[in-house]
Amino acid sequence: MQRILSTQLPAHVGATVRVAGWVHRRRLLKSVAFLIIRDAAGLAQVVAADPAARAAVEQLTEETVVEVTATVVATPAAPAGVELTHPTVRPLGPPAAAPPFDLYRPALAATLPTQLDHAPVALRHPRRSAALRVAAAAVAGFRAALDARDFVEIHTPKVVASSTESGANVFALDWFGRPAYLAQSPQFYKQLMVGVFERVYEVGPVFRAEPHDTARHLAQYTSLDAELGFVGDHTDVMAVLRDTLAGMLATVADRAGTALGTLGVTVPQVPGSIPAVHFTEALAIAGAPADEPDLAPAHERALGEWARREHGSEFVFVTGYPMAKRPFYTHPDPARPAYSNGFDLLFRGLELVTGGQRLHRHDDYLAALAARGEPVEPYAGYVDAFRHGMPPHGGFAIGLERFVARLVGAANVREVTAFPRDLHRLTP
Amino acid sequence: MQRILSTQLPAHVGATVRVAGWVHRRRLLKSVAFLIIRDAAGLAQVVAADPAARAAVEQLTEETVVEVTATVVATPAAPAGVELTHPTVRPLGPPAAAPPFDLYRPALAATLPTQLDHAPVALRHPRRSAALRVAAAAVAGFRAALDARDFVEIHTPKVVASSTESGANVFALDWFGRPAYLAQSPQFYKQLMVGVFERVYEVGPVFRAEPHDTARHLAQYTSLDAELGFVGDHTDVMAVLRDTLAGMLATVADRAGTALGTLGVTVPQVPGSIPAVHFTEALAIAGAPADEPDLAPAHERALGEWARREHGSEFVFVTGYPMAKRPFYTHPDPARPAYSNGFDLLFRGLELVTGGQRLHRHDDYLAALAARGEPVEPYAGYVDAFRHGMPPHGGFAIGLERFVARLVGAANVREVTAFPRDLHRLTP
Repeated sequence: MQRILSTQLPAHVGATVRVAGWVHRRRLLKSVAFLIIRDAAGLAQVVAADPAARAAVEQLTEETVVEVTATVVATPAAPAGVELTHPTVRPLGPPAAAPPFDLYRPALAATLPTQLDHAPVALRHPRRSAALRVAAAAVAGFRAALDARDFVEIHTPKVVASSTESGANVFALDWFGRPAYLAQSPQFYKQLMVGVFERVYEVGPVFRAEPHDTARHLAQYTSLDAELGFVGDHTDVMAVLRDTLAGMLATVADRAGTALGTLGVTVPQVPGSIPAVHFTEALAIAGAPADEPDLAPAHERALGEWARREHGSEFVFVTGYPMAKRPFYTHPDPARPAYSNGFDLLFRGLELVTGGQRLHRHDDYLAALAARGEPVEPYAGYVDAFRHGMPPHGGFAIGLERFVARLVGAANVREVTAFPRDLHRLTP
Repeated sequence: MQRILSTQLPAHVGATVRVAGWVHRRRLLKSVAFLIIRDAAGLAQVVAADPAARAAVEQLTEETVVEVTATVVATPAAPAGVELTHPTVRPLGPPAAAPPFDLYRPALAATLPTQLDHAPVALRHPRRSAALRVAAAAVAGFRAALDARDFVEIHTPKVVASSTESGANVFALDWFGRPAYLAQSPQFYKQLMVGVFERVYEVGPVFRAEPHDTARHLAQYTSLDAELGFVGDHTDVMAVLRDTLAGMLATVADRAGTALGTLGVTVPQVPGSIPAVHFTEALAIAGAPADEPDLAPAHERALGEWARREHGSEFVFVTGYPMAKRPFYTHPDPARPAYSNGFDLLFRGLELVTGGQRLHRHDDYLAALAARGEPVEPYAGYVDAFRHGMPPHGGFAIGLERFVARLVGAANVREVTAFPRDLHRLTP
């Protein structure tokens, strides 16, 4: 008999079926025993009324893996309107040791560090796994949106020879006796691949040795990177980002509807055109002094409030960040060269995406590095490629964990990361 | 005027259009000049007959990025049956420096090391980029096949606390003052996630510090990993692998048809049931002594020949590898415990996929480690999870670069890798 999933039970009322999964909860009443079986799709209730079946159920600890052959009965009061009766229960392994916390309660009672210490078990909780399903759907939506726009997926090195880009905060390693570094982003590679495919994306790990112990920093996170050529300026990049976000959220709604229900989350609308304010304007809206060089978290929150109030939007672009605060490959605003063609996207008052137009002329790279007093040599393999013809281009990078945390209302990115890596955590 | 791609030109005969791309080739004849423009979709021929246009074309070196406004004329003799006449050519950047090799020739004349040294330019060659398009399509097909079978995508740590699994050949790094290692595979994590989602996959980089300087080893490669629970034995895993491969090849044919044409490659059929031989049988077929513990490359080639000859199949499974040659988490064959429920898939006589059923009982893990004289402690976070209920499960890992190389007939995996990393190569 073919195994079916818990969600398929309503279509089999009256039939004998086989289900399998984990003992999510066991309840022993005087004359009857209930098992809640958890499988990939959801939960199923099993009722053991006769003494032999009840005795078998008594042996089953929670989280033991079992196979149950039983009859499907319509029971309006049960979850999904069905339950399984007259069960034959066969364990598929030894009785499970008790988890360090109850997985069947609506929320895990353990602290986040305890959950993370026991991640393989904690992630079985429906709320924890739901967040990871949302993440999987978001990534699928990212790819689908870009595939539909002729982007090509790439895979680039995660170990590099120079600690470039931001300089500090890189992990060093030994590469066959040579010093090497974990890549902080696929920035240079995705730009180079614009020279090959015009439009590229990559989903992959990036590594930041930042000694921050905050709720929104991880030392490894999943970066959703895109880069496109033949743009007029950064606004073409912003338009693709808008459509990509809309695609991500549509796919989350489509593929992870049950997970959203578990989390009590509804997916926000992405406006056809996301409101955008110039950095100078953003300072004024946030009530910051006009000579502030960057936006503080409180400013970002104020801008999030403003976007919601004035535009009914959960998203807002801030454009034209000062050049001094952006990486050397950033393209300046031709009309106001102290400001950049770089942007951030705030989602509910938090920076979620950074992007912009990049330099595309070799001479501009040499000048930009010289202006910062940086040597060309560590960047040679990257900068040299711009001698061979590169179109005007730009791109963006979305932090997956931040996106999911903000979407599902998690206070800490670690709640939506399977096995987070940070200053303190290298296991499990 | 909206830019169009080269492949859209036949639909615009008689119209004035705008195209953009790289000067793939420039030919100056006495009274006329030809430009071949390369864009993301292909090539377009531009004819400059009047003196002003011809003079403009003379300034354009190969690989310079240009925008061309011109009239589309049906010309049966030209590529795709159209050419662009009366052009206005506008460079989008300075004249490009000459590439270190001619990109317009049917094949790159440079040696592979020279190509790799200049990868950002070499990858622009239509044959090099075609292989990467095949890779992108293969990965898309992998995901689509597994998405359709209820697998959930995961993202797992690439830095781990213990150098486990194969012990040697790992890259060491400094993690905030603690020793850490680059992950050689997501093996343990994907197994743990079977406890959460039953079926999971991951596409990501893996790192092997193998001091091999061969045509089929990379120190970083892209691993396509899948793992599924509630299997009867390894044959259930093999069936999913068969369908996944068929899905990958179907997507390659569907999405990368032009790239296949460029490479002169046709996609092989995957038999409905891939022929499978037990390891002991495989030795006999390959003419190897019956006490050989493993298959040598020559044996694999012989098996590939046999599968093609006897079954008309480019693929053949070898099952039941000796336990002594498989990792400790491998499930033995219950009927012949010296042999495993592990398998390899050979594609055209080369090992492409390794997989099998894994142990799922905690006690079996303790016994397996003890039998190998290995301590449990480095594996604690992994092994402990098996105390909390894990179903019988198994999985497989496909090496993307090997798959693509074998499919397109590349002699070296570096030919189908954008920026390979190996014993000698850490740039670009």
